[in-house]
Amino acid sequence: MCGIVGVIGKKDTTQVLLKGLEKLEYRGYDSAGIYVNNQDGQDYLVKEKGKISDLEKAVGPEVQGLVGIGHTRWATHGEPSDTNAHPHVSQSGRFYLVHNGVITNYQELKTTYLKDVHFVSATDTEVAVQLIAKLVEVDGLTTEKAFQKALKMIEGSFAFLMVDRNEPDKLFVAKNKSPLLVGVGDGFNVVCSDAMAMVSQTKQFIELHDGEMVIVTKDHVQLMNADGETIERQPYQATIDDSDISKGTYQYYMLKEIDEQPAVLRRLTQAYINDDGEFNFDSKLIEGLKAADRLYIVAAGTSYHAGLVGKPIFEKLAKKPVEVELASEFGYNMPLLSEKPFFIYLSQSGETADSRQVLVKTNALGYPSLTITNAPGSTLSREADFTLLLHAGPEIAVASTKAYTAQITVEVILAQALAAAEGLENNFDVKHELGLAANAIQTIVDSKDKMADLAKTYFAKTRNAFYIGRGVDYCTSLEAALKLKEVSYIQAEGFAAGELKHGTISLIEDGTPVAAIITDPATASHTRGNIQEVEARGAKTLRIASEALAQDGDQIVLPKLSTVVIPIVSIVPAQLLAYYATLQRGYNVDQPRNLAKSVTVE
Amino acid sequence: MCGIVGVIGKKDTTQVLLKGLEKLEYRGYDSAGIYVNNQDGQDYLVKEKGKISDLEKAVGPEVQGLVGIGHTRWATHGEPSDTNAHPHVSQSGRFYLVHNGVITNYQELKTTYLKDVHFVSATDTEVAVQLIAKLVEVDGLTTEKAFQKALKMIEGSFAFLMVDRNEPDKLFVAKNKSPLLVGVGDGFNVVCSDAMAMVSQTKQFIELHDGEMVIVTKDHVQLMNADGETIERQPYQATIDDSDISKGTYQYYMLKEIDEQPAVLRRLTQAYINDDGEFNFDSKLIEGLKAADRLYIVAAGTSYHAGLVGKPIFEKLAKKPVEVELASEFGYNMPLLSEKPFFIYLSQSGETADSRQVLVKTNALGYPSLTITNAPGSTLSREADFTLLLHAGPEIAVASTKAYTAQITVEVILAQALAAAEGLENNFDVKHELGLAANAIQTIVDSKDKMADLAKTYFAKTRNAFYIGRGVDYCTSLEAALKLKEVSYIQAEGFAAGELKHGTISLIEDGTPVAAIITDPATASHTRGNIQEVEARGAKTLRIASEALAQDGDQIVLPKLSTVVIPIVSIVPAQLLAYYATLQRGYNVDQPRNLAKSVTVE
Repeated sequence: MCGIVGVIGKKDTTQVLLKGLEKLEYRGYDSAGIYVNNQDGQDYLVKEKGKISDLEKAVGPEVQGLVGIGHTRWATHGEPSDTNAHPHVSQSGRFYLVHNGVITNYQELKTTYLKDVHFVSATDTEVAVQLIAKLVEVDGLTTEKAFQKALKMIEGSFAFLMVDRNEPDKLFVAKNKSPLLVGVGDGFNVVCSDAMAMVSQTKQFIELHDGEMVIVTKDHVQLMNADGETIERQPYQATIDDSDISKGTYQYYMLKEIDEQPAVLRRLTQAYINDDGEFNFDSKLIEGLKAADRLYIVAAGTSYHAGLVGKPIFEKLAKKPVEVELASEFGYNMPLLSEKPFFIYLSQSGETADSRQVLVKTNALGYPSLTITNAPGSTLSREADFTLLLHAGPEIAVASTKAYTAQITVEVILAQALAAAEGLENNFDVKHELGLAANAIQTIVDSKDKMADLAKTYFAKTRNAFYIGRGVDYCTSLEAALKLKEVSYIQAEGFAAGELKHGTISLIEDGTPVAAIITDPATASHTRGNIQEVEARGAKTLRIASEALAQDGDQIVLPKLSTVVIPIVSIVPAQLLAYYATLQRGYNVDQPRNLAKSVTVE
Repeated sequence: MCGIVGVIGKKDTTQVLLKGLEKLEYRGYDSAGIYVNNQDGQDYLVKEKGKISDLEKAVGPEVQGLVGIGHTRWATHGEPSDTNAHPHVSQSGRFYLVHNGVITNYQELKTTYLKDVHFVSATDTEVAVQLIAKLVEVDGLTTEKAFQKALKMIEGSFAFLMVDRNEPDKLFVAKNKSPLLVGVGDGFNVVCSDAMAMVSQTKQFIELHDGEMVIVTKDHVQLMNADGETIERQPYQATIDDSDISKGTYQYYMLKEIDEQPAVLRRLTQAYINDDGEFNFDSKLIEGLKAADRLYIVAAGTSYHAGLVGKPIFEKLAKKPVEVELASEFGYNMPLLSEKPFFIYLSQSGETADSRQVLVKTNALGYPSLTITNAPGSTLSREADFTLLLHAGPEIAVASTKAYTAQITVEVILAQALAAAEGLENNFDVKHELGLAANAIQTIVDSKDKMADLAKTYFAKTRNAFYIGRGVDYCTSLEAALKLKEVSYIQAEGFAAGELKHGTISLIEDGTPVAAIITDPATASHTRGNIQEVEARGAKTLRIASEALAQDGDQIVLPKLSTVVIPIVSIVPAQLLAYYATLQRGYNVDQPRNLAKSVTVE
C-alpha cells in the first residue's frame, strides 16, 4: 500500500507522475500529492485528500517541471487529510519526501533528535524528512551523507524518494522491506513502486534491495550499499504491456478480471503441464516437497483462503500433511513445527509485508520455501528458494478474483506433480479436469444477467449476510463472504455450516440472506439440515449446489466437476454476486474504501 | 437443544412438568407444550409458540392429570409456531409424543409408509407418532411392539417420550444420541433430558443408553434393549442441588455465572492440584498424553475458542504439538492425522452432537480420548477413555462464561502436569498463577459500574463491532466477539489484528467500535499500529491491555499476570461488556433468540 513515483529528465513530468499514480491507485487512495521542480528555482507542491482524480483537478496548468515525485496514500498513521498527504516537507521548505511503509521508531526519533522541530502532520513520514533536514542544516552534512545516515537511524519499513530543492538534478532513493524500482530511460529515469506505473515510459527496470540507496539523475543511476560503496546491477526487461493494464471495454477491472479466469486456467495448464502430460516444475522443488514431512502454507486475506482450499488438495492427492497459517499471526507466535517443514507463501503481489516477515524468519531457520505469486521479481519471489508464477496478468481491482482461482489451480497441479513424484496413483486427470473447470467458469460468467438479478434479490439492500458450507465449501464460504464484504460493505461472514448454531445463529432475523455452498458429497445432507435451521428463523436462503447434489429450487447449479477442482469454480458466482451487489449499492467496485492492494505494511 | 420432561404418579403433574420445563428452557424456547391425562378419560393438550411463560399463561386450572409429558423446542424442521410445537398427535388422536433430535429419513418414511396420512405440521417429529399409530391401528401391533419397531425404522437422533391414550398408566421412552434420563421416585417416576429439570422431585436417576427403550409406570421402570430383552441398571445419585440452579438475588444467570469465576478457578486448583503441589490426575491419562505425538482438540462454539487458547498453552508448557478442530468440520473431512494422535473433546454439556460424531469415529479408529466437560455422566464423558470435570456448577445462561474460563484452567493445569511428567522445567508455578488469575477476575467483576459505562459508550447503539488481537489475544477476540454477538445481536467479529487490513477494514466507518486486546508482548506494538490504522478510518477504539503493556488512555487495564493464565482473565471484561450492552439494548441476556444450550443436533 501507498504508491510512489518519480521522474527526472522528461518535459511532461507532471503528466508522467499523474499517469503513474493512476496505475498505482490500487495501492491506496486516501490522498495523493506531487512535488514538481523546474530546476530553475520554480517549484510546486499539490496535495489532496481523496483519489488521483481529485488531485488531477487540483493541479493547474502552471504545474510543470523537469523533476518530480508523487505519492498515493493508504493511511497508517494519521487520518486521510490534505495535511497528512505526501509529499512531506522539512520545516525549512528545502526537502520534499514521499514514503511507503511504517517507521516504527518515529516517536523515539521525535523526542530524541527532533525536540525543537514543529511538526505539521500526524504522520511517521514527516519524521524522516525533518531528520534529514536537521542532519544537513544543523549538523552540516551533505544531503547524500544525511540521507545515508538517516537510513541507519530509521527503523521499520520504507521506500523513500526525496528531492532537495538546492540540488534539483537528483532524486534520492532508498528502500527497506517496501518495494521500489528504478526505470531506465533514454535521457531520463523514473522511480516507482511497481513497474506497472512506468511501463508506458520504459521497459528496463533495476531491482533495488533492502538497505541500498540510489542517486538518480536524468542520465545516471548510482546504486550504493549502506556504506556508500557503489554496486553494479543490470536492468531487467519488464514483460507487462500497457494494454494488459487497461480496462478495455469494461466499466471496472473487477469484472474484466473475473471474465479472464478461464483463460488464466488454460494458461496455467500450459505453463505447468507439457503436451505429453509431464509436469513442468523444477525438479529440485519437487524433491524439496517430497523430502518435507509437512507443508506450511502462509498467507493473508484472499490468499489465506486459497491456502485453506489447498490443504485438502495436497492431503488428498499427495498424502502430504498441510498446515495453513495466517502470516500476521504465525511470524510472532510460531507453533511447534514438524521436523522437516516446507514453507509455501501465497501472495498475489509478492510484496505482502505480513508474509515477508515470516519468510525472513523461516529463511533464518534454514527451511526451504516456495512463493506462489503473480509478480515476477517481487520481494517474496526473490527471497524464497523457488517461485511459481500465477500467469494471471496484472490484477488491478483491489478485490482479488483471478489471482485466487489461479492460486488454487497452481496448488492442484503442484499437488498432482508431487503425487506423481511420490508414485501415488489417484486416478485424477489434472489436465482434463482443469479444462472442464475452465469451461464451467465460462458457463457461469456467461450468465451475468442471472447473477445480477440474484444480487439484487439477496444483497442489494441488506446490512448483513452469511455464506455457509462444510468441508471445502467452508473455505469457499470464507472467501465468498470476504469478497462481498470488501467491495459492498455488507457485513458478510463465512461460516462452517454446522458451527452457526453454536452462537452466531442469533443474528438470523426475518429476511437475513444466507447463501449456502453445497459441493461436498460427504456433508451435503448436513448442510441442507443447517439451511432448514436458518430458514426456520426467517433466513432468505440462496443455494449454490453442484449438479450432483442439486435439488429443486436451488438457485445456482454448478456444472459437473471433480471435487478437487470444484472450489476453483464454486467461488465464481460469489465473485459476480459481490460485483453486482456493489454496483447496485452505488459504490466503486475497483477501489473499496479503506483498502489497498499489495499490503506492504504489517 | 429441545428439552423433554415426563411424570407419572404425581397429583401435581402439570406443575411438575411446567417447573421442569422452566429448568430446561436453556435447551430451546421457540415453543413449548404439555399433554396431561387424568387416567380416567379426560386429557389436555396445550401448545404455545414462545417461552415457557407463554405456555404457563395458556394452561388453565382445569389442566390436571396423573400422567403427562412436556417439551420446550429449538426449531430444526419447520418454523417456530403453535402447530409445529410438541407434543405431536397421531391422526387418530390416540398417541402423543415429544421428541428431541433430528430424524434424517423422515421424508422417506413419509413417502413409503405414510402416504395416506394427513400431516398437520412441518416437523420431522410428526412422522414418528404417525408411524407408531399406523403400526398399531393398521398393522395391528401392540403399542409396545409398535414403539419398538418404529425405533428400528427411524434413522437419526432422538429422545422420545410417548403416551398412548388407551394405556395412560405408561410412559414409552427411548433414546438414540440425544440425552434422556429416568428419575426414580417413591410411588412416582419422572423422565427428563437433564437431571436439573427433576432434581426437586428426586435425586435418583437411571442413565439410558443408545438403542434402549423403557416402559415407565408409577411404580416401575422396565429397561429393554433393542430386541426387547430386559436390562438391569442401578440409579445414580445426582449431586446437583436445587439451590445450585436458582438465580439467587441476580436478575440473570449470566451475571451470576460471570461472578462465580474466581470461585471456579479456586475449586479447580483444589480438585487437580494437591496441597503438596502434586497433580491429581489419573496416571493413565498422563501416560496417554505422553505417548501421543500430537493432541487434537475437537470442539464447537465457545469451547472451540477455549481449544484455540489451549494450543499455545500445551505447546509452550509441555512442548506437545496441538491441532484445534471444529467438530462439525473434522468428523466429515478428517485431515491426515499424525501417527499417535490423542483426542481431547471440550464440551460444557458433554452432549454436543457435533463433537460426539467425531468421538464415535475416533473411538472406531482406536484412538485415545479425553472429555473435558461440566456434566458428569454425559454422553461424551461416558464414551471417552478419560473425563476431567470443569466443576463449574450448572451453567444455565445460554452464553457460556464460567465454563469457558474453567476449560482453559483445566488445560493449563493439565499441560503443566504433562510438562512435569515429561520432566520439562518451565518455571511456571501453576497454583500461584491461578491464584493470581482468580484475584484478577475478582478485581474485574468488582468494577461492574465501569463496564456498564463502557458498554453504553461503545455497544449500546452500534450495529456492528470488532474485537482484534494477536497471538492468544486473537483467540480471546474470537470469543469476545461471539459473546457480544450471541446475546446483544450486534454483528461482532473477532479478527487477527494484522489480518483486518486484508479486506475487512473496508467495513470500518466513522464511529465503528473496535476493541483491541493487548496482552501479548511479542505483538503489542504491531497491534497498536493496527489500532492507528482503524482510528485513521474513524473507528472508536476500546483498548484492553495488560498492565505491563498498557499506555495512557487505555480504557481497561488488566492486573499483572503471566501470559499463560492471562487469557483466563482477559475475556472477563468482554463478558461483562456483552452482558451490559444486552441489557442496555433491551434483550433477555439469558435466552438469546434462536439459540439453545447443549446443542444436540448436528
